[in-house]
Amino acid sequence: MADKIFRVNMSDLTTRIEDVPGVWAGLGGRGLTSNVIAAEVEPTCHPLGKNNKLVIAPGLLSGTPAANSGRLSCGAKSPLTGTIKEANAGGSSAQMLAKLGVKALIVEGMPAEDKWYSLHVTADGVTINEETELIGKGNYDVIEKINARYGDKTGVISIGPAGEMKMAAANLSVKDPGSRIRSSGRGGLGAVMGSKKIKYIAVAPTDNKVDIAKPEEFKAANRAFAKALVDNPISQALGQYGTNVLVNIINEAGALPTRNFTSGQFAGHEEISGETMHDTIVAREGKPKHNCHSGCVINCSQIYNDPGKNYKTSGFEYESIWAMGADCCVDNLDLIAEADHIMDDLGLDTIETSVAFGVAMEGGLLNFGDGEGICRILREDIGKGTPLGRIIGGGAGNVGRAFGVTRVPVVKNQAIPAYDPRAIKGIGITYATSTQGADHTMGYTIATNILGVGGKLDPLSHEGQVELSRNLQIATAAIDSTGMCLFIAFAALDDATCLPSLIDMINARFGIALTADDVTNLGMSILKTERAFNMAAGFTSHDDRLPEFFKEEPIAPHNVVWDLDDKTIDSFWNF
Amino acid sequence: MADKIFRVNMSDLTTRIEDVPGVWAGLGGRGLTSNVIAAEVEPTCHPLGKNNKLVIAPGLLSGTPAANSGRLSCGAKSPLTGTIKEANAGGSSAQMLAKLGVKALIVEGMPAEDKWYSLHVTADGVTINEETELIGKGNYDVIEKINARYGDKTGVISIGPAGEMKMAAANLSVKDPGSRIRSSGRGGLGAVMGSKKIKYIAVAPTDNKVDIAKPEEFKAANRAFAKALVDNPISQALGQYGTNVLVNIINEAGALPTRNFTSGQFAGHEEISGETMHDTIVAREGKPKHNCHSGCVINCSQIYNDPGKNYKTSGFEYESIWAMGADCCVDNLDLIAEADHIMDDLGLDTIETSVAFGVAMEGGLLNFGDGEGICRILREDIGKGTPLGRIIGGGAGNVGRAFGVTRVPVVKNQAIPAYDPRAIKGIGITYATSTQGADHTMGYTIATNILGVGGKLDPLSHEGQVELSRNLQIATAAIDSTGMCLFIAFAALDDATCLPSLIDMINARFGIALTADDVTNLGMSILKTERAFNMAAGFTSHDDRLPEFFKEEPIAPHNVVWDLDDKTIDSFWNF
Repeated sequence: MADKIFRVNMSDLTTRIEDVPGVWAGLGGRGLTSNVIAAEVEPTCHPLGKNNKLVIAPGLLSGTPAANSGRLSCGAKSPLTGTIKEANAGGSSAQMLAKLGVKALIVEGMPAEDKWYSLHVTADGVTINEETELIGKGNYDVIEKINARYGDKTGVISIGPAGEMKMAAANLSVKDPGSRIRSSGRGGLGAVMGSKKIKYIAVAPTDNKVDIAKPEEFKAANRAFAKALVDNPISQALGQYGTNVLVNIINEAGALPTRNFTSGQFAGHEEISGETMHDTIVAREGKPKHNCHSGCVINCSQIYNDPGKNYKTSGFEYESIWAMGADCCVDNLDLIAEADHIMDDLGLDTIETSVAFGVAMEGGLLNFGDGEGICRILREDIGKGTPLGRIIGGGAGNVGRAFGVTRVPVVKNQAIPAYDPRAIKGIGITYATSTQGADHTMGYTIATNILGVGGKLDPLSHEGQVELSRNLQIATAAIDSTGMCLFIAFAALDDATCLPSLIDMINARFGIALTADDVTNLGMSILKTERAFNMAAGFTSHDDRLPEFFKEEPIAPHNVVWDLDDKTIDSFWNF
Repeated sequence: MADKIFRVNMSDLTTRIEDVPGVWAGLGGRGLTSNVIAAEVEPTCHPLGKNNKLVIAPGLLSGTPAANSGRLSCGAKSPLTGTIKEANAGGSSAQMLAKLGVKALIVEGMPAEDKWYSLHVTADGVTINEETELIGKGNYDVIEKINARYGDKTGVISIGPAGEMKMAAANLSVKDPGSRIRSSGRGGLGAVMGSKKIKYIAVAPTDNKVDIAKPEEFKAANRAFAKALVDNPISQALGQYGTNVLVNIINEAGALPTRNFTSGQFAGHEEISGETMHDTIVAREGKPKHNCHSGCVINCSQIYNDPGKNYKTSGFEYESIWAMGADCCVDNLDLIAEADHIMDDLGLDTIETSVAFGVAMEGGLLNFGDGEGICRILREDIGKGTPLGRIIGGGAGNVGRAFGVTRVPVVKNQAIPAYDPRAIKGIGITYATSTQGADHTMGYTIATNILGVGGKLDPLSHEGQVELSRNLQIATAAIDSTGMCLFIAFAALDDATCLPSLIDMINARFGIALTADDVTNLGMSILKTERAFNMAAGFTSHDDRLPEFFKEEPIAPHNVVWDLDDKTIDSFWNF
């Protein structure tokens, strides 16, 4: 079954299936979403207008039995940053779309009438249906109702009320096999889907299989690949404690941004740590290990129950916990879980929204530490779209503007996540230069700066940080195109069998002969395509900068400022 | 008496008097504020942080008997646009500062403590006083209290609650001789003064006189200059109907942006016109003619009374009346006057705020035409700093982001004023290319495009618009440096005696020998200095663009879109 482009025009409510142009044939995931946007979206268009497009693409290996290949890439011009944007998530839709033969789903235009719609994707194409019942509903409710309509196995990509209200912190939610929620979190893609008046995309289950040109080679490579993943000690730690294993590690490193980025350590770190979370989950009969898509061998997700042993949240990530925990000084995991649940339900990026609360706390809206206050405002204000809700739902930069706060941790208007760039210089380069605004996943130097993966590099030194970030950003762009979870990177950096096996799988899937250089070239080409889009949208190297306060306010305990100069930052693009 | 720089450091609460560096000796008004900012302010600094500076400068002729020379320039990096900013206003302070020997007042730094202050400027220097009583008070109250403290003749430059709350639409208010309010309206300079925790600047009255090198030549030139102003038919129309004479003219031209820029004509134009306003003022025993500073011979201001014949507002300008009138569809002059009074009292740019209401109306906050709703939100929300108030006080672009509205008439995030660029192409060039965001006063092509002053140029043609805007922007930059009101431009464009007389006055004042070319070169140099600051702050030609919707939505009655291409726009800077 040949892969096709499934195209939906919301202006005239038509859909069609197109052959894949030759130039896109070798692309998947982020490589495809970014190339489609670069080719078809006017860089200066309004992100919430009819000229923006929402592009959804499984990775090159999605739908195959390859371990950890279930990530779904979603792209558009971002209403938060104004840059090109790709955010990916697990869940079941990537594999299902791949099996349906969907190379990419491109949603364009905008309805003239003020009506809501849903899309139903099957192997025969896309059907557009008017939607009324689910409008205003949260993602948990949406998933339950769609399960009832189409069956439990249906894939769901949906927006909550935040996306309907076109808030810049609105994300896309992707249903996982257990009908829980994974999120394409960053950059306001939920607002783009909301602007196109689409409440959800349902993906039909199928018995189709993805074509594999050389099945035996594929199987052998996958075996070696999965072994590399399973054997890796970081994979194992992620399976035991989840990503939240990082709270104590980053706090120890003095790089856990606390109280709106005014300290690098949080007194309440033990209360919100991965270890505490693990013990709590076990005591409450949750699941410390849980996979967000079938085929994952790392299982960094978990099911976190409330004290009454009822489900509260899953995919409870370090960065979300950090943001409401250390950054807002809330040392209560149950309150953070409650907020996480509400944000998933409303369809909000937990990083952007919680960092926005940190800025609002500095602006005097709430006291630091007031987790109940955050939950109340999430429910009563953001959920109902009050003016306060719209300010916070607009993200951290927006809150800074509203309250006249100058300590606003954003790059290209996107909130800086859980690693302070003053104390970990490499990640500062990633924040500054990423084509997508501040985003740790774009070039996760924490691996080498802190975890000693792929070598060691002193987080406080200036030397080698640009090269580290560049190499990781290139590799990440390539990995994000395969449908692979980024957590394969730990094994890829430390186990010589891992990357060759991954390339072998791609070659076996398509009957081609990529080399490691080809993969690197793919990554470089994606970054350059994204950068060119941004330049055409008006961005320059002046936008590749951290906020002023990082250069002026030393952070404890290292008492260091951000001190890499502009020329060094700009040398990132010398490739 | 030699002119000096009066410098105030709010970080350590010190003040000092400095000699004027040679490079600034020939500068005044905007030429000086922009050059000080370019020299002393880091272009990438946060506009509300300690590294921004507020610069206040009278013009080269301020304080002399020259007709219409009482404008005060205020400059900073703008929190609304992120560009360099100069906004000027009448009132009595320019003349008083000049007579005190203040070439420029430079306010830098920011207090560490959360306390408010005032500045008192005398010939001996500046005194910083802590202020408590007037915090939270409106400008009318502030002026009354300062009159009681220091006497009626004291000059006042103050901020209202909007500036205290650092709203991006906050302006600076300048007291006029009748203790009414003139405004340095655009770009959020009130927020900059608020960030420095200064509630007001009091300027001591003085019997000093400004030195004039050649008094007889000066007197003769001023006579010729004043005659040119008084004889000019547009000056006369401005004296009779105020700037609001333009409502009917621009409506007739099909360029009166209506209902958030969706039409070029307003059905209720007669109700808000200059003619109706004039008759209403006369019937209510207000003043149809009123000067905002002594020495003005045009008298475009007025005193507008309420139906009970009590004072309601003054300086009731076309652009303010248009913004709440046509753009928000409020066809009731008394409601607009009420809103104007409240905005003056709160210290809000009437253009930015009212255009923001137009966008909010499109976003569903109020119905178009709901003038009572606007007054209520001004009082209850903006005045009290509720979240809704902070959204609207953040300006039109901010409202667009909050409510997900895509039809947002801003350039460089500053609201487009009262002349639709689709129907008057020349002003579109000014909006696009101005160093300060959309601002009609930066290059008022309406003079030639509509009023037939300085020749005629079809507003709908493409030809010559760039040259027209360029010539006017250069001339305006020079005029803004003299302390002259921009309304001298009508006489300057049509009366051959006007400009030479102005140059003669400058020469007689300083004992120099400027030529017309020198004045043109000054204007060009100011524009280039401002542009260089913006480029260093990260702006590019991509920012010299009108919003997307102007290119896509034709406006009635001409049914034209904005169709000047990017290359044509960029050719503006070819000088």
